[in-house]
Amino acid sequence: MGAAEIGIGIVGYGAMGKAHSYGYRVAPVMRRLRDRPRVRVISGRDREKVAAAATAYGIASSVSDWRDLVGRPDVDIVDICTPPGTHAEIAAAAAEAGKAVICEKPLAVTYAQAASAVAAVEEAHVLNAVGFNYRRLPAVSLMKRMIDEGAVGAVRLLRATWLSDEFVDPAIPFDWRFDRSMGGTTIADLGSHLIDMATWMAGPIAEVSGQSETFARERSGRPVTVDDASAALARFESGASGVFEMARTAVRRPCDFTIEVNGDRGTLVFEYARLNELLYGDGDDRPELYGMRRIRAEHPSHPYTADWWPIGQGVGYGSSFVNQLGDLLDRWPEGPWEPDFAQGAAVQAVCEAIERSAVERRWVTVAEIVG
Amino acid sequence: MGAAEIGIGIVGYGAMGKAHSYGYRVAPVMRRLRDRPRVRVISGRDREKVAAAATAYGIASSVSDWRDLVGRPDVDIVDICTPPGTHAEIAAAAAEAGKAVICEKPLAVTYAQAASAVAAVEEAHVLNAVGFNYRRLPAVSLMKRMIDEGAVGAVRLLRATWLSDEFVDPAIPFDWRFDRSMGGTTIADLGSHLIDMATWMAGPIAEVSGQSETFARERSGRPVTVDDASAALARFESGASGVFEMARTAVRRPCDFTIEVNGDRGTLVFEYARLNELLYGDGDDRPELYGMRRIRAEHPSHPYTADWWPIGQGVGYGSSFVNQLGDLLDRWPEGPWEPDFAQGAAVQAVCEAIERSAVERRWVTVAEIVG
Amino acid sequence: MGAAEIGIGIVGYGAMGKAHSYGYRVAPVMRRLRDRPRVRVISGRDREKVAAAATAYGIASSVSDWRDLVGRPDVDIVDICTPPGTHAEIAAAAAEAGKAVICEKPLAVTYAQAASAVAAVEEAHVLNAVGFNYRRLPAVSLMKRMIDEGAVGAVRLLRATWLSDEFVDPAIPFDWRFDRSMGGTTIADLGSHLIDMATWMAGPIAEVSGQSETFARERSGRPVTVDDASAALARFESGASGVFEMARTAVRRPCDFTIEVNGDRGTLVFEYARLNELLYGDGDDRPELYGMRRIRAEHPSHPYTADWWPIGQGVGYGSSFVNQLGDLLDRWPEGPWEPDFAQGAAVQAVCEAIERSAVERRWVTVAEIVG
Amino acid sequence: MGAAEIGIGIVGYGAMGKAHSYGYRVAPVMRRLRDRPRVRVISGRDREKVAAAATAYGIASSVSDWRDLVGRPDVDIVDICTPPGTHAEIAAAAAEAGKAVICEKPLAVTYAQAASAVAAVEEAHVLNAVGFNYRRLPAVSLMKRMIDEGAVGAVRLLRATWLSDEFVDPAIPFDWRFDRSMGGTTIADLGSHLIDMATWMAGPIAEVSGQSETFARERSGRPVTVDDASAALARFESGASGVFEMARTAVRRPCDFTIEVNGDRGTLVFEYARLNELLYGDGDDRPELYGMRRIRAEHPSHPYTADWWPIGQGVGYGSSFVNQLGDLLDRWPEGPWEPDFAQGAAVQAVCEAIERSAVERRWVTVAEIVG
Repeated sequence: MGAAEIGIGIVGYGAMGKAHSYGYRVAPVMRRLRDRPRVRVISGRDREKVAAAATAYGIASSVSDWRDLVGRPDVDIVDICTPPGTHAEIAAAAAEAGKAVICEKPLAVTYAQAASAVAAVEEAHVLNAVGFNYRRLPAVSLMKRMIDEGAVGAVRLLRATWLSDEFVDPAIPFDWRFDRSMGGTTIADLGSHLIDMATWMAGPIAEVSGQSETFARERSGRPVTVDDASAALARFESGASGVFEMARTAVRRPCDFTIEVNGDRGTLVFEYARLNELLYGDGDDRPELYGMRRIRAEHPSHPYTADWWPIGQGVGYGSSFVNQLGDLLDRWPEGPWEPDFAQGAAVQAVCEAIERSAVERRWVTVAEIVG
Repeated sequence: MGAAEIGIGIVGYGAMGKAHSYGYRVAPVMRRLRDRPRVRVISGRDREKVAAAATAYGIASSVSDWRDLVGRPDVDIVDICTPPGTHAEIAAAAAEAGKAVICEKPLAVTYAQAASAVAAVEEAHVLNAVGFNYRRLPAVSLMKRMIDEGAVGAVRLLRATWLSDEFVDPAIPFDWRFDRSMGGTTIADLGSHLIDMATWMAGPIAEVSGQSETFARERSGRPVTVDDASAALARFESGASGVFEMARTAVRRPCDFTIEVNGDRGTLVFEYARLNELLYGDGDDRPELYGMRRIRAEHPSHPYTADWWPIGQGVGYGSSFVNQLGDLLDRWPEGPWEPDFAQGAAVQAVCEAIERSAVERRWVTVAEIVG
Repeated sequence: MGAAEIGIGIVGYGAMGKAHSYGYRVAPVMRRLRDRPRVRVISGRDREKVAAAATAYGIASSVSDWRDLVGRPDVDIVDICTPPGTHAEIAAAAAEAGKAVICEKPLAVTYAQAASAVAAVEEAHVLNAVGFNYRRLPAVSLMKRMIDEGAVGAVRLLRATWLSDEFVDPAIPFDWRFDRSMGGTTIADLGSHLIDMATWMAGPIAEVSGQSETFARERSGRPVTVDDASAALARFESGASGVFEMARTAVRRPCDFTIEVNGDRGTLVFEYARLNELLYGDGDDRPELYGMRRIRAEHPSHPYTADWWPIGQGVGYGSSFVNQLGDLLDRWPEGPWEPDFAQGAAVQAVCEAIERSAVERRWVTVAEIVG
Repeated sequence: MGAAEIGIGIVGYGAMGKAHSYGYRVAPVMRRLRDRPRVRVISGRDREKVAAAATAYGIASSVSDWRDLVGRPDVDIVDICTPPGTHAEIAAAAAEAGKAVICEKPLAVTYAQAASAVAAVEEAHVLNAVGFNYRRLPAVSLMKRMIDEGAVGAVRLLRATWLSDEFVDPAIPFDWRFDRSMGGTTIADLGSHLIDMATWMAGPIAEVSGQSETFARERSGRPVTVDDASAALARFESGASGVFEMARTAVRRPCDFTIEVNGDRGTLVFEYARLNELLYGDGDDRPELYGMRRIRAEHPSHPYTADWWPIGQGVGYGSSFVNQLGDLLDRWPEGPWEPDFAQGAAVQAVCEAIERSAVERRWVTVAEIVG
C-alpha cells in the first residue's frame, strides 16, 4: 500500500483505551490519511486482561508495565489512557524517550503536575496533545467556527453545565475516582471539558468564584477526597461573564452537558443529548422568524461531516475520537497539534482556581495559580 | 345571584394591569368562587389612556391618582401593578386605609422598602400577597408538591436560569426599567421569581456569591443604573447548593426560564417554554426505563388543572394570574394569603445580597441584609 | 360606556359552553372591540346544573329548553355548544328566528344535515360560523399566512395526525360520544379540525381512501357505532397528496395533533403540544444553516400576538376561542364570518367520504358525497 | 492470536461499502467475537476508485468485476452493497459459489427478483441476511423487546414515516436512483426499512391501499420512473391498522424517520433524529405521572449498549452496522441469521403491493403479490 505506518502505544485498556483503539481503527476508513496508524502495543497492570483487550482491539502485543511501552522503537506516539494521577509521570517518560504524546484529560490532578508535563514535552520538543475530544464533535466544532466568523458578535455571557449521576449512589464502593490524588476533582473530570470548550470559544478566564460539595463523604469506610458537585462564576479576560456547573450527583442525568454563548448579536446552544444539532438564534434574522434555528450539524459544509455519513444519519460519541485522532495523525509528524499540553495546563489552572476559591470562599484569579 | 361581591381597585393599567384584569374576569368562570370579584376602579397617570383601558377591561371607573383609589369605600382589595419603585408607598397607604393588598413583584427595589411594606401591612392587620404568579402554573405547583411528597428525596442541587432579550438592543431609549430606583435590578425583576420558587421548594438561602454586568452603560445619554445580567452561587440553609442566573441580554431568548432540582433520589426539571410539562427522573424507577418522564401537567389530579381544559389542551401565561387571584379570592376574607409580603421581603433580601456580593466581590449572607 | 352590546345566547353548558363563555369574557379585555358581547342566556336540559353554570360564568339567566333561547329578542347571536347530532336542528331554528349562528364543530353528523344547515342560514341571510377554533392559534394562523406568502412554495405533501386516548379504556360506559347519530365519527370529531386546517392551507380535497376500526365494539352492553381510529390517504385538487390519521385509542397521547406541509421550497410543522411554536425549514436558507427554525410564534408581528402577552410568555388553548370570537365580534354585524357553514359542510363531505371509503374499501371522491 | 478468520468480500465501494467496511473494522473492538472478520477484497467497476477505497478501508485487494470476487476461495461471506437492481443476480451467483450472502436492502427491485434470490440461497443452503440495519439500533431493538414483553399490550395502531429531501431539487441530474429497474421505488428504498421494522414488531401485513406521486417527472431529459413520495394504509394480519409514508421531497427533512406503536396498554415512539432515545407511555403508570418516559436507550440492560460507551454518550448511525455485522459474525457459521432473504422478500411483497395499489387505485393484498 506504500503508505508509511505510524506506530502507536496505548497506555491503559479501560474505557478510554477502548475509545482510542476504536479511534485508530476507524480514522483511516473515514479520512484519507497519508500515513496509517498501527497500534502496536497496549499496556495494563493486569496481564491477562490487557492481553484479552489486545486481542479484542486487534493489537499485536501487550505489556503489563507502561515503562516497557514508552521506550519501544516501533512506537512513535504514546497515548495515555490511565487515571489522571498517573498522566504527568507517564507523559514525562514518553517525552524523554522522544515520543509524541497524546494524553487523556485532565492533563493532571494538580496545576503543578500539569506544568511539569508541559515542561517535559517542551524540553523534549515532542508533539503533544490533550484529549479534549468533544471539541471535535461536528456541532461543537461548528459552534466554534461560527463564533469566530461573528455569528454571535461579541461574546457576553457563557454558561456550561455537566450533569451526571455517576456518584449518586452512596453505596458505590471507594475506588480511584474518589481519591483526589488519583482521579482528581469533579471540577477537573467533567469541568475540564467545559472549560476547554469555553476558553477555546471565548478566550482565557481571568478569575473565578467557586463552591463545592461532597455529599457522600465516606465510601467503603474510606474518606472521599473529591467533590461530588461544584459550580463557579467566572470572568473572562474579554470581560464576558461565565457560569459553570459540574455534578456527578444528578439523578437520571447520564451525561447531559450543555454550553451556551450569548453574544451581542446572537446565541448558540449546544446540548450533548442532541449531539448532531446546534441551536442558533441570529439577532439579525427577520423578526417574523423570531426564534432559533436547529441546525442539523451534518451538512457537508460542516466540520468533519463530509468524512462520515449522509446528512441526517447522525454520529455518536465515538466520532469525537476518530476526528481528534484523525486530525493529529493528519499533521504527523510536522504538527502543530492542538489542543496541546499548554492548553491542558491552562485548563487545569482554572480548575484549581475554582477548587481553591471554594475552599477559601473568595474570588481567585487564574494568575494566582499559574504564579 | 346572591353571592357577595369583592371590590377591587387596580393601580396601573400597563402589562400587569391587563394581566390582573384578565385574571379577575376569568377566575369566576374557572372556579366556583363563593364571592365574586368586581374591579371597580383602575388608576393611571394618563387620564385618557387609563379611561380607555377601563373601557376595554370592563371596569366602571378610572382615576388618575392612585390616592383616589386606595381610600374608596367600595374597594376591598388594592392590587398594585405599577413599577417596583412605587410599590412600598402605595402598599403602605392601602394598608393604612384598611385594604387588603396584592402587590406585583418585586415587592420593592430595596430590602429596606420591602421591610417597611411588611411593617405597614402587619401593623394594619390586612391580608397581603406578592405576585409571584409562576408558582401557580400547574407544572410548577406540581413540582413543589412532588418535592414535598418526597419525589426527589433530599434536595442537593438546584439551578435556575432566566434568559430574556429585553435589553439586547443598545438603542432602546432610557426608561424607568433602566433606573435602579424605579425598576430595580435584573436580579430582582427576573431573579425574584426564581428565588421565590427556589426557596418555596428548597427552603431559605443562607448566603450568596454574585456577579453582575451592565453592557450598555448609557441609554439616551443617561446612565443605566441596573444590571443587564447577573449570576449567583448560593448556599441554602439546608446545605443544598444553588446556581442562579438572570439576563436580559440573551439574543433570541424571549422568556426562557428553567428550574431544576436534583435530590438524592430524583430530579425534577421545569422549562417555561414547555409550561404544560414537568420532567421527572425517578431514581427508583426500573433501570430498564432509565430516563425521565415528561409529565403532561394537565391531569385532573394535578394542581389547578381540573378548573381548566381537558388534558392535552394546555394553558398559557394567563392561567397563572387566574389561579393566583382565584386562590386569594377563595380565601377572602379570612386568609391566609401566600406568598405574602414577608416572603416578598425575604426574596428581596436575597436579591440584595447578590447585588452587594457582586459589588463587594465576596460571599454575603442574607442575614447581613436582613440585619 | 357608549358601546353597543351584542346579545349572546349559548346553547349547552358543557366543556364547549365553558370555553365559549371564557371567550366572550376575555375577548373585550384583549381586543378593542367596538361593541361588547354580553352573554344573556345559556341553556341546558338539567335546570339545576345550567343555573349553576350561569352563575359561575356570570350569565344573567338560564333556560332548560334551547327553543326558549333562540327566539329571545335580546339575543343577537346563538352559539351552539351541544353534541353534534343536535347542531343542524338548532342552527336552522336560530337562523329562522333571524339570529346569527356560531356552531361548534363538526357542523353535523352527516353531510345531508350539514347541507341543510347551510341552506337554512343562506335562506335566512344570517351570519354563520363554525367553531374550527385551532385556526386562530397564533402559530397555526402564522402557518397559513406563511404558506400564502410563499414560504414553502407549491404544496406537495401534507400530513396531519390527531392522537388522543379518550376511548382507550374499554370500561368507559356508553354515552352519546359512542353513538354515531349523536356524537358522529372520530373522523369528524378530531379529523374535522385537521381537514379544515388542511383545506384552508392547501385547498380542496378531491378524493380519499380511508380505513376505520372500532376496537371496543360494545360498551355498557350497547353497540358502539363510531370508529375508534381512522386514517385516510387524500388527493387535493391541486395535485398535492395528503395523509390523515385520527385516533382516540392512543395511550398517553392526550391531544397531540400535528400538521406538516412540504412544499417544493420549504417545510412547515405545527405540533399542538408546542402550541406557541412553528417549525420552518426554508429551502432557500444558507446551506450552512441547514435545519429548521423553531419560530416562537409570539412576536408582535405574528397573528393575534399583539393582543396577548409579551413574547415568550405563551398562550394556551383558551386563546383560540378568544381570538375566534374576537374576530367574529369584530365583524359584527356586517360580516363576513369565516370559516362559515359552507366550509363546515365541505369539511363534513370529506369526513363522510373517508367514512364511506372505509366501508366500501375504494377511493371515494368528495364530489360523490356532495352530489 | 488463535482465532479463526472469516473472509469477507464486499461488492461495491460506495456509501454502503464504506458503512460495511466500518462495521467489519469496529465489530471486533466492540464485541468479543470468537472468529475475526477480515475483508479480503472489494469490487467496483472503476478500477482506480475501488483501489483507492481498498487502501482507505484497509482492504488488501480490489477487483473491478464482482464475478472475480464471489468465487474466491478466501471469501466466506459475500456482502452486496451495490444498487438494488443488481442484488438478485449477485446474490444468486454468490450462493451458487457456496458463499454466505449479506445483501443490502431492498433485497431486489421486484418481488419476482426477490423470490428468485430466496430460491437461490435456499437451494444452496447458505446463510443469508438482508441489511435492515436500523433494527440493530439499541432503541429500535429495545422497542421490539418491549413490545414482545407486553409493554404496550396488543398492538392496535402503528404509524411510520420517513422524510428526506434527497430528491427535492429538480436540477439533480438523472442517475440510477431515478431508474425503476436499478434503484427501485422510494417505497422500497425508504419504506422497506419501515415495513421491516413494522412487521418485525407487529407481524405480517395483509393488505394495503397506496398512493404515489412523482413531482419531477424528467431529469436530464430522461423520464424518472420512480416515485418521489408514497403513502399507504395497511391492515396487519393481527387486525392492527397501519399508516406508512415515505418521501424524498420533504425540504429540510434529512432522514427523519419515526415509528410509533399504540397498543391497548401503552405507546412506544422512536424518532431517528433522537436515536438514543425511546418514548414510552405506559397505560398502567400512576395517573399523577401521566405522560411518556423518554428512555435513554443506553442503559447496560438495553440491547447492544454494554458493548459501546458509558450511558449518556450516545451512538450514531454507524453502530447499526457494527451491531448487525457483529450479530451475524457471532453466529458464524452455524446461523441462523436474521433478518434473512425470506424477510427481505416478504418486505418486497408489501412494497410491491403498495406500488400496485397506487397504480390500480384499489386495496391490494400481499397474497396477490406473493401468488
